Amino acid sequence: MEEPLPIRILIHGASGRMGRALLRLVAERPELQLVAAVSRSGQPLAEAPAGVPVLPVEKLADAPDFDLAIDFSLPEGFGPLVAACRAKGAGLVSGTTGLSEAQLAAMDEASELVPVLWSANFSVGVAVLRALVHQAAAALPGWDADIVESHHVHKKDAPSGTALSLGQAVEQGRGSPPHYASLRCGDIVGEHLVQLTGAGERLELVHRASNRDIFARGALEAAVRLSGRGPGRYDFGELLLAGGRP
Amino acid sequence: MEEPLPIRILIHGASGRMGRALLRLVAERPELQLVAAVSRSGQPLAEAPAGVPVLPVEKLADAPDFDLAIDFSLPEGFGPLVAACRAKGAGLVSGTTGLSEAQLAAMDEASELVPVLWSANFSVGVAVLRALVHQAAAALPGWDADIVESHHVHKKDAPSGTALSLGQAVEQGRGSPPHYASLRCGDIVGEHLVQLTGAGERLELVHRASNRDIFARGALEAAVRLSGRGPGRYDFGELLLAGGRP
Amino acid sequence: MEEPLPIRILIHGASGRMGRALLRLVAERPELQLVAAVSRSGQPLAEAPAGVPVLPVEKLADAPDFDLAIDFSLPEGFGPLVAACRAKGAGLVSGTTGLSEAQLAAMDEASELVPVLWSANFSVGVAVLRALVHQAAAALPGWDADIVESHHVHKKDAPSGTALSLGQAVEQGRGSPPHYASLRCGDIVGEHLVQLTGAGERLELVHRASNRDIFARGALEAAVRLSGRGPGRYDFGELLLAGGRP
Amino acid sequence: MEEPLPIRILIHGASGRMGRALLRLVAERPELQLVAAVSRSGQPLAEAPAGVPVLPVEKLADAPDFDLAIDFSLPEGFGPLVAACRAKGAGLVSGTTGLSEAQLAAMDEASELVPVLWSANFSVGVAVLRALVHQAAAALPGWDADIVESHHVHKKDAPSGTALSLGQAVEQGRGSPPHYASLRCGDIVGEHLVQLTGAGERLELVHRASNRDIFARGALEAAVRLSGRGPGRYDFGELLLAGGRP
Repeated sequence: MEEPLPIRILIHGASGRMGRALLRLVAERPELQLVAAVSRSGQPLAEAPAGVPVLPVEKLADAPDFDLAIDFSLPEGFGPLVAACRAKGAGLVSGTTGLSEAQLAAMDEASELVPVLWSANFSVGVAVLRALVHQAAAALPGWDADIVESHHVHKKDAPSGTALSLGQAVEQGRGSPPHYASLRCGDIVGEHLVQLTGAGERLELVHRASNRDIFARGALEAAVRLSGRGPGRYDFGELLLAGGRP
Repeated sequence: MEEPLPIRILIHGASGRMGRALLRLVAERPELQLVAAVSRSGQPLAEAPAGVPVLPVEKLADAPDFDLAIDFSLPEGFGPLVAACRAKGAGLVSGTTGLSEAQLAAMDEASELVPVLWSANFSVGVAVLRALVHQAAAALPGWDADIVESHHVHKKDAPSGTALSLGQAVEQGRGSPPHYASLRCGDIVGEHLVQLTGAGERLELVHRASNRDIFARGALEAAVRLSGRGPGRYDFGELLLAGGRP
Repeated sequence: MEEPLPIRILIHGASGRMGRALLRLVAERPELQLVAAVSRSGQPLAEAPAGVPVLPVEKLADAPDFDLAIDFSLPEGFGPLVAACRAKGAGLVSGTTGLSEAQLAAMDEASELVPVLWSANFSVGVAVLRALVHQAAAALPGWDADIVESHHVHKKDAPSGTALSLGQAVEQGRGSPPHYASLRCGDIVGEHLVQLTGAGERLELVHRASNRDIFARGALEAAVRLSGRGPGRYDFGELLLAGGRP
Repeated sequence: MEEPLPIRILIHGASGRMGRALLRLVAERPELQLVAAVSRSGQPLAEAPAGVPVLPVEKLADAPDFDLAIDFSLPEGFGPLVAACRAKGAGLVSGTTGLSEAQLAAMDEASELVPVLWSANFSVGVAVLRALVHQAAAALPGWDADIVESHHVHKKDAPSGTALSLGQAVEQGRGSPPHYASLRCGDIVGEHLVQLTGAGERLELVHRASNRDIFARGALEAAVRLSGRGPGRYDFGELLLAGGRP
């Protein structure tokens, strides 16, 4: 049987924390072949594997052909990246936050031509949790719902984006949002508890992250799962629950 | 719009702990109309609503017509009950344990004619948990799986039947069983933790029961959900995730 | 060896939820002999053991001699009860809330003559937890402190009195108060988590109540522990940590 | 006011994982002055601060004067180290495992001359937990006790040494040992739950470690706390609960 061709990847936002983790960890996935990295300045990056060009954002159009872009950057560069994906027929995995209404609309529009997956949190465990929470809230509509999240003391926003995304899953499931509580303590990477409470019984669905590499590993998993799919908007959790690469 | 006819219920094993809880709580569900109770001796039961006959097992054939039997009894009476359900075209919700291979086969055979739901645990929360665990284990095949269950000191079997049922869901999902740990302490009604652990992250899916009435209430919910469905074997968790009465 | 004389007990506030639980459970403790109950109306109480008089509050002075009063009542009757304890040289175990500054001062004054123990929560487990929390907060002064408490949806005050009492123990230990989060869900009797978080490690100290009888049983334990001690204000947790009846 | 003289430290077992972490982290504590490191081979170590000699074990006698030795090594070198501490009048903080009866006796004997602290786990949080568990078990003698510990899949011994040490605290407190359960999953650094369960209520005392540096930091804390004390065997948890440097 013939080995499938590797999926050619472009990493956008390569000099950020997630970008550098992706450069460091991409070699763990034999299905993926990194063909280019893009950062604002285009300066060399210690994490970039030998032979992989690092381009400045304004040279994005000069990048070699790619099948899928993984993007953790800033809103400024998002429009040109979406345009490049459309032009190449390439998929897009993005975790860039702070996108404008117009940028979100451009992403939706691109999803008519190419597969697109955006997520607030690329932990595989959180994505699965979100899908489970949606179903549980739908099956237990009369139960009380609470979300408690804990993060390190330097995190400023509360509730966390992940907590809000889990809360959205609760609301989609049962029609009303949960209550939130946020703790900021120590150096906790991230913990989320979704608690559903009925009369005489309770479900507690918890995710604990202990290492930030899980987010980059999850984005690489998302790239493998998205590759080869048709145009459309995809949910990371649903892709994970649906099984392997198509 | 016409009110649907109530579902006529027969409670089998009415003098046991679950049977008496069912007699006490059935009035909470307006969809259900209790038409008869069956116990080994047929002696009057304080919990039986006025006007509802309590029959001894050997008079089961004299029971008024019913749409669905709820059974928490002993293996001895199981064969006649299955026969009665077939004869009446009635559904069967059963939590009777210790059934023989022949009795399990008879239940399967009956399910070609009537809807049948058997479960080791009728807590709504445990049923939902079991369905979630199945999906999570399938989505995270390389993660470690552990089940920890806690019950009161008088419980003799370990792991609990519920823990084994959750473990079966893990195995169906990922192809290999979990590890088990059992604690016996105080007067804990029942707690089950299914823990899935990957590199740098973890999912903990927990159910806590604080009141034994949840099992009777869940069996009544199962009766409502099963009623009106076609022949077949049904899983409680899947019925709950599938939404309301058909 | 001679059997010690039983401790003669008066229950004040006997018609309230705690009072009735005390009447029902006092027989579990052979060290205690119930000699009288006092309620607002003095009407008969089903839970009162045969032969034990139930007096109306205005007849408190007519009560037979007692060694110790257990009080879960309303602020109105508190002054006369304290006076009666002083007059009899009897100890006082009280959980009455909403006391005025003047009433608190009267309690302090009485403690120069008789032993006095007031607590916001008479669960043995919470009392031990409070003593542990005090020590842990003192030993780990640089760690972050958070308290999360969960109660049933009908509880109106937040944080709970118990959470505030645990927070006071944190503050006494390390000099600064914790952060609080409160969940109101289902029919949870009461759960309190005190979390102390340092760099790279965390302590979680949790109490879970599943049955309201623990509060009455704890008050009876407090009565046994307080009896025979000299005048003074006592802390329930410290009495528990100090070992048995003096 | 005069600044106290720094505590002169010798690190024994400097080339092991703990030894190297100690060399890396000792500079965080201004109270401590590293004067020498000892490893089996005496070869240079990248983590050793400039100017600090690394001696081979057979040259231990040539080490400069020190006030306290911190030892995470192998049983072979333990005897000479204890002799050196006695000769210098220096304290000993040790986490070396696998000591023989004779070596344990030598440690006890040395403690008549110098302060000695041995611990199975140098996490500050575990040490505090152990002291709390001892007290809680003593205050709640009739409650059930269970210890659940989770570690990464490469850990071979079960229950962990820390779990056994916590179990010893339970036994010292209430006279009977707890039940143990061990989970081996993912890359968990270490988690320990001590659960005390009574009728209707429960205490859960949990420690979670997320970073291995806590063990070296705790050993440095132990050195600061032990320094200046008189001869004797010391318990890390009790030193932490007793307050700062004497």
